[in-house]
Amino acid sequence: MGALAQYAFTVHRIPVGVFGASGYAGRELCALINAHPQLELAYATANAQRGDRAWLGGREVTFVATDDAPIRDAELVFSALPHGASAEWIARARGEGVRAIDLSSDLRPGHTTQAIPYGLTEVAREQLRGAEVIANPGCYPTAILLSLMPLLSRGLVKPGSTIVVDAASGVTGAGNSPKPELLFGEVTENYRAYGVGNEHRHLPEMRALVDSFEPDADLLFTPHLLPVARGILATTTVQLTEEIDQPLALWHEHFAGERFIEISGDLPALRDVVRRNAVRITVRKAAGLRTPTLIVLSAIDNLVKGAAGQALQNANVALGLAEGLGLPL
Amino acid sequence: MGALAQYAFTVHRIPVGVFGASGYAGRELCALINAHPQLELAYATANAQRGDRAWLGGREVTFVATDDAPIRDAELVFSALPHGASAEWIARARGEGVRAIDLSSDLRPGHTTQAIPYGLTEVAREQLRGAEVIANPGCYPTAILLSLMPLLSRGLVKPGSTIVVDAASGVTGAGNSPKPELLFGEVTENYRAYGVGNEHRHLPEMRALVDSFEPDADLLFTPHLLPVARGILATTTVQLTEEIDQPLALWHEHFAGERFIEISGDLPALRDVVRRNAVRITVRKAAGLRTPTLIVLSAIDNLVKGAAGQALQNANVALGLAEGLGLPL
Amino acid sequence: MGALAQYAFTVHRIPVGVFGASGYAGRELCALINAHPQLELAYATANAQRGDRAWLGGREVTFVATDDAPIRDAELVFSALPHGASAEWIARARGEGVRAIDLSSDLRPGHTTQAIPYGLTEVAREQLRGAEVIANPGCYPTAILLSLMPLLSRGLVKPGSTIVVDAASGVTGAGNSPKPELLFGEVTENYRAYGVGNEHRHLPEMRALVDSFEPDADLLFTPHLLPVARGILATTTVQLTEEIDQPLALWHEHFAGERFIEISGDLPALRDVVRRNAVRITVRKAAGLRTPTLIVLSAIDNLVKGAAGQALQNANVALGLAEGLGLPL
Amino acid sequence: MGALAQYAFTVHRIPVGVFGASGYAGRELCALINAHPQLELAYATANAQRGDRAWLGGREVTFVATDDAPIRDAELVFSALPHGASAEWIARARGEGVRAIDLSSDLRPGHTTQAIPYGLTEVAREQLRGAEVIANPGCYPTAILLSLMPLLSRGLVKPGSTIVVDAASGVTGAGNSPKPELLFGEVTENYRAYGVGNEHRHLPEMRALVDSFEPDADLLFTPHLLPVARGILATTTVQLTEEIDQPLALWHEHFAGERFIEISGDLPALRDVVRRNAVRITVRKAAGLRTPTLIVLSAIDNLVKGAAGQALQNANVALGLAEGLGLPL
Repeated sequence: MGALAQYAFTVHRIPVGVFGASGYAGRELCALINAHPQLELAYATANAQRGDRAWLGGREVTFVATDDAPIRDAELVFSALPHGASAEWIARARGEGVRAIDLSSDLRPGHTTQAIPYGLTEVAREQLRGAEVIANPGCYPTAILLSLMPLLSRGLVKPGSTIVVDAASGVTGAGNSPKPELLFGEVTENYRAYGVGNEHRHLPEMRALVDSFEPDADLLFTPHLLPVARGILATTTVQLTEEIDQPLALWHEHFAGERFIEISGDLPALRDVVRRNAVRITVRKAAGLRTPTLIVLSAIDNLVKGAAGQALQNANVALGLAEGLGLPL
Repeated sequence: MGALAQYAFTVHRIPVGVFGASGYAGRELCALINAHPQLELAYATANAQRGDRAWLGGREVTFVATDDAPIRDAELVFSALPHGASAEWIARARGEGVRAIDLSSDLRPGHTTQAIPYGLTEVAREQLRGAEVIANPGCYPTAILLSLMPLLSRGLVKPGSTIVVDAASGVTGAGNSPKPELLFGEVTENYRAYGVGNEHRHLPEMRALVDSFEPDADLLFTPHLLPVARGILATTTVQLTEEIDQPLALWHEHFAGERFIEISGDLPALRDVVRRNAVRITVRKAAGLRTPTLIVLSAIDNLVKGAAGQALQNANVALGLAEGLGLPL
Repeated sequence: MGALAQYAFTVHRIPVGVFGASGYAGRELCALINAHPQLELAYATANAQRGDRAWLGGREVTFVATDDAPIRDAELVFSALPHGASAEWIARARGEGVRAIDLSSDLRPGHTTQAIPYGLTEVAREQLRGAEVIANPGCYPTAILLSLMPLLSRGLVKPGSTIVVDAASGVTGAGNSPKPELLFGEVTENYRAYGVGNEHRHLPEMRALVDSFEPDADLLFTPHLLPVARGILATTTVQLTEEIDQPLALWHEHFAGERFIEISGDLPALRDVVRRNAVRITVRKAAGLRTPTLIVLSAIDNLVKGAAGQALQNANVALGLAEGLGLPL
Repeated sequence: MGALAQYAFTVHRIPVGVFGASGYAGRELCALINAHPQLELAYATANAQRGDRAWLGGREVTFVATDDAPIRDAELVFSALPHGASAEWIARARGEGVRAIDLSSDLRPGHTTQAIPYGLTEVAREQLRGAEVIANPGCYPTAILLSLMPLLSRGLVKPGSTIVVDAASGVTGAGNSPKPELLFGEVTENYRAYGVGNEHRHLPEMRALVDSFEPDADLLFTPHLLPVARGILATTTVQLTEEIDQPLALWHEHFAGERFIEISGDLPALRDVVRRNAVRITVRKAAGLRTPTLIVLSAIDNLVKGAAGQALQNANVALGLAEGLGLPL
């Protein structure tokens, strides 16, 4: 029988803020911060919803206008403001001496010429320690790039080939502004591609990372809209320089010790990763082809590892906290 | 103001039967037959459900055991029996002088050495006229192969390349036998690939048709399970021998006059084709790649154009009826 | 073997128009009209979508502005305009000598003092023959009132009692204007009541009909929003003046010969009625209660029997056509 | 700026077991136990899945056969075995001196003549402290009974009246055994009642509690199946002995200080309670009725407050832990 120990003590929590807290990613961030053992939410901004209250992560949050945010009350601020509107607020926070993590695309490779650390945590961890500002990756790039690292980092992608990525996302990836095509009556029992032909905003950051390893490979990315609230599954076809006998072993080896990256022989499903800060990956050989080819499958929750969770993981690293603190698994 | 004409007259209907009528495809067939202006349902078999009644296409159908089917009461029989069980019943029907259309994979290219007409109607129409037996294509092959015909038939697929097909289907494609992984609680808010690595039963028939046009191209097919009841969307990436300036015009030209093939500049959605015997196709150029590449998108209802509808279309052709009779658009 | 008769002849179709054709009910109407053997669509109006084209019922429809509608080109016009905006256009059509069927609530009992025939077809059929204008019932009232007629018409509802109606509808009942609470991300995996406390717009027309039979009974109506596109299920609890031994027989008797009313011992499901002009009803005795009580369950498709289908049924009656023409079963 | 305190210490955890851990409620229990700060999972049994591993609450669980469970290794065991099979195992655990909480209906009022504490925590808290065995309430009764306590405990339900409960549940309430009617293809876009006429297994325990307060009131319960995975919404109509001016204030007063019962003026939605151990309740007056009548709406997650969460809440009380430990809000 286990003996029972009651415990009580005080923790000084680090105050953090959220700009643009009323969208899906912003709310997820507030919920994660409220449940984090060493952070506390100093403010959460939402212009249109200012004054509104929401129950997030077991606590009530009251939104304030972004202009009214007491920026310096936080040691670090996350921005989940829309693309285009975010960079300015990141600059303001930096001007006040507050660290910042930008969840928009404004500071990502391909969108700015500044050299901002790109927060794919498991790839860039060392650059993120103590960082003053971090560009948080897009949801699709998180799922896709992490899953390709074992190949990219070893030069196994066939030069001259095209990496073909077909990926599908739940509707929260499109935000919560009311648009006719996102109504339940339009999305239920439906499925479609969008941004076809290499037009998606996430392409430049993916190109940038692929180029840094294999400039002679191309990338073709086709996203799809799923009738689910959350989750991304990416199915990536890669032609190789040579046959790989035990591809799964390669992934296991590459990600050994990574708590949030789950390599498995089973095919990943959204169900495996929803509400978790995990990336679940498997890899299969394609039978019957002339060119050695792998199919890499990768699943994440677009709002957790694909947005708020990875942002918090990066905040933990930047602030010198244990990397996994407050992250759901 | 239109003048009103009442009309009434008698049509002699052609009796047809259905083996394996209790599954999703079998029920859809019965519904379409019941709504067809020149066919009538002579019998519908379902061993486990024998004696059960179902309301299909505006009429009540009573299932009989397959052994009790009065085979010769029909002029043509459709078999929606399971793969492996169907060929035997097709043979029996043929032995009784009854025409047969097999919706299982038993008689399709790659599954049999017999030379059975493969009922991709818009491709094989001339071979199907008056045919005694037809192998009805699989749902995925219907969506994929039709969408590729403008390229295959013109030799535009790059030799040595791999055609990469990622496709997703609603759950009715998996049948209505109760399996834990098909429970609502498991499928809702979920999405996953299956048969990854070129393992799907539909691969051989796709390979066969591709090989007949371009033996030097490979095919990689990865299917996924969608949380919807009906519909297939295929996203196919094809490397070309040369740039095509106006790909959409090529598709329009190739399918000119085809009533059930809808070429559009808009991206197809399941919503556009569900409960219709249509294939909706668009094509887009991939930007920024070294090799000229097209993305071809194709949507069908897996139970209509992907199964029962195409089977009925083939029956119309085989019986000398107008090809579109009784087919929903 | 059936002999085959080819047939061909010309039918003069009656031209009809649709005001407000871009909403869910308006589109359903256009689709049904396009598939109707003796009607043709003269015009379909939609101010915001004017010039847009839609594929409805197997034909393409081009929307015109309501102001531009050639009202007199139709012999009858349906209005699916919003509540409040519809009455004026019905009056204009009437002023031009065009028959009109109003799908809004503007002309229904409780919403106007005019004596307009209330188009619950199976109840009011005789008043509808040749009618110049008809108030088409709301979706909930259609499901609920029809299911209660066997009790109301026989005086079997206990005076002083409250008829308790809990009903649930798919989201198309709320229209296709983009509202945040109707986004897929908000409705999926969700369920909630609305208009609680007898506040729903459909209450007056239900009260009016109940009062006409049993003014001493009260009615309490609580609607709910289902995560489905289409369908209404109403669960109604009624206290009786006396035990009814065989309630199902009473319903069978009352609705004998009614093609669109399906009485069954089985519990109705949305699945049974979606895309059909049917009302499916069953009734069960409540066990273990002091007061004899029945639970009446009734299901319809809110867009078909609950809106466009019943409107067309009423148009058939008003125009002297066969009542069931063009109505899906 | 908050100062940061790192902390580390050892807690002796109380070992608990789970019988029947492979169903939805059993898995939820394992997940909650794995995330509980003062409990640890000693064993989890599942005969058919013995040897299978599952990732639950951030840890891997390996199922053992129920016969192989080291019963005494736990201080308390939860049984989520099927109705009928559970009582025997509860007795065995008791025979070994292990406390037990039964999630089946076997030990609930109306199902046994034994006087077992009925674990509606907020009602029976005092009887549950140190209890050796507890009958955990059904999911529907939890939602319904808690919401009615302010009326029942004050004698405000009108004698001779019938409390009419229409409730709807997600499919996890029906378990994860594969049945045809629970397939995704059958449940999506569908909705239906079941157990109509006061036939549901949960009725006796509800009757028992209502009778203990107001034996002269009847109860009519009609459950429905929703196309969602989780959640129950109960809509209850109650006739009163007298008008209540401020019903919401009455509920606020009754449940003051109850952490898991959330009284709100807003209408509850499944979304508000899913994955939380909360009951969310509101109440509205019915307008225009002769008899003073309230509509009480109550929402829970059927697997959390309706099963595993309340079981854990009861375990906390029985073991002398803080009642809210490890319960998600």
